Amino acid sequence: MKSVYQNWNMDAELPLEIHRISNLSFYPHFHNELELVYVERGDIIVGVNEEKRQLQAGDMVICCSNDIHYYVSKDLESEVFMLIFKPELIGAAKTWPVDFRFESPFIDSTQPEFSRIGSLLRQMFQENENARTGYPMYIKSCLLELFGTLCRYLPTVPFDRSSSQRFEYKRAKIHKIISFIEANYAMDLSVEMMSERFEMNPSHFCRSFKKAIGMNFKTYLNTIRVLMAEHQLVNTDSSITDIALECGFGSIRTFNRVYKELKGCSPSDTRSSFQ
Amino acid sequence: MKSVYQNWNMDAELPLEIHRISNLSFYPHFHNELELVYVERGDIIVGVNEEKRQLQAGDMVICCSNDIHYYVSKDLESEVFMLIFKPELIGAAKTWPVDFRFESPFIDSTQPEFSRIGSLLRQMFQENENARTGYPMYIKSCLLELFGTLCRYLPTVPFDRSSSQRFEYKRAKIHKIISFIEANYAMDLSVEMMSERFEMNPSHFCRSFKKAIGMNFKTYLNTIRVLMAEHQLVNTDSSITDIALECGFGSIRTFNRVYKELKGCSPSDTRSSFQ
Repeated sequence: MKSVYQNWNMDAELPLEIHRISNLSFYPHFHNELELVYVERGDIIVGVNEEKRQLQAGDMVICCSNDIHYYVSKDLESEVFMLIFKPELIGAAKTWPVDFRFESPFIDSTQPEFSRIGSLLRQMFQENENARTGYPMYIKSCLLELFGTLCRYLPTVPFDRSSSQRFEYKRAKIHKIISFIEANYAMDLSVEMMSERFEMNPSHFCRSFKKAIGMNFKTYLNTIRVLMAEHQLVNTDSSITDIALECGFGSIRTFNRVYKELKGCSPSDTRSSFQ
Repeated sequence: MKSVYQNWNMDAELPLEIHRISNLSFYPHFHNELELVYVERGDIIVGVNEEKRQLQAGDMVICCSNDIHYYVSKDLESEVFMLIFKPELIGAAKTWPVDFRFESPFIDSTQPEFSRIGSLLRQMFQENENARTGYPMYIKSCLLELFGTLCRYLPTVPFDRSSSQRFEYKRAKIHKIISFIEANYAMDLSVEMMSERFEMNPSHFCRSFKKAIGMNFKTYLNTIRVLMAEHQLVNTDSSITDIALECGFGSIRTFNRVYKELKGCSPSDTRSSFQ
């Protein structure tokens, strides 16, 4: 699945992307890169780890390394700035942060200390668009001021070794489950089979999954399958029936129903709009 | 001589020093670290490579890697911010810049693009003093904005391979001469001996030296000797006569005369004021 969501071609000198996106939707995933989303206008639902909120203009969310996060724009309209970058840009090694956690990933935009973040993101976006002499220095400068501000003013929880280990153990298990689904979505996966494989009883598996991912196992599995199917509809000439079966749907009827439910249009609509 | 002027204990995480200094004087030297001096008030004479100017409040000078630079405050009063840091902090490897040179190290403070530099330095100084949570990020942020501004607005000269080689060859020769004097100041050095050693005719040696260093050979040699003597007067119990001879002065009388000329007080004044 990395091929689908990690197709950012991050520059080695400035491993950072900043985009302005309308009606952002993205299924639950995680990565080492840090991600910050700032709502310019409208409303969007954002989930990070076990918290979910509907954000409005001026609201922000910070996803730290390996936080599981997702975006839902169904029946909502919004425009957001999305900033993604490698931890090394703020002086960290592989992941950030290591010795603390933020109490919450959601940033209270009414707090005066955070009032500059919106304009910092607009400046980064403009610098990146214009690419004038010295722009990487200006972008890094804004990034460091932004994260200096978060470190100084966003409430944190210190992370000792044992709480860190418990947290990482729990997260590593969820990461394994997600990675397994991403690798095997074409197979006939069920709650029974998954809970057996990961040595949990089925109701514990369902509860843990829903809590960590923000949606139930079946919806998550369908989301991945639809995403892969959409990719094939747009980029290959395979028949819709072949795609349905290759992506793990039992029948073309189920495929059509689930696809329409999640995407709001039929598979053949997607295909014809890209031809 | 590195022990005298490079005694900054630069932090590995934030290899940067920022100081507020009154009446700064320092003899010609060079290093890989970048150095920026901003005059808060008063006047100071600054030399960089072959340029020398008297700076006033609001004026600035940037010394790039290996630029030969010095400060003179004789008969002048000033307060300056001095910023020194390793090139890696602005994303460079060992030295900076590599593929261009600034047309002049002196920064025209009346140009509106540079008007924020003073407040950036004051902010860096305050952040460093207060050392609140996240201060390294704030300091790096200011530093990157400052150097982004210089790169964007200070006129530069592109450096191709051949002009770069000529420049570096000439500079390497001066560096060798300086290093030789720093290592052998206790010996009986003369223009004749130096020009023979460095295979230049004496008048060419004197002209090149004065042009590169901003003072003649004899004054430079005396400056180094006085600096070393001062260090011994303050930090050892050696007799003033021993110090004079150890630092290359032919007699105690010469030592007293030269020391007073350069420092404005006698060696015994220095010793007694530190006892």
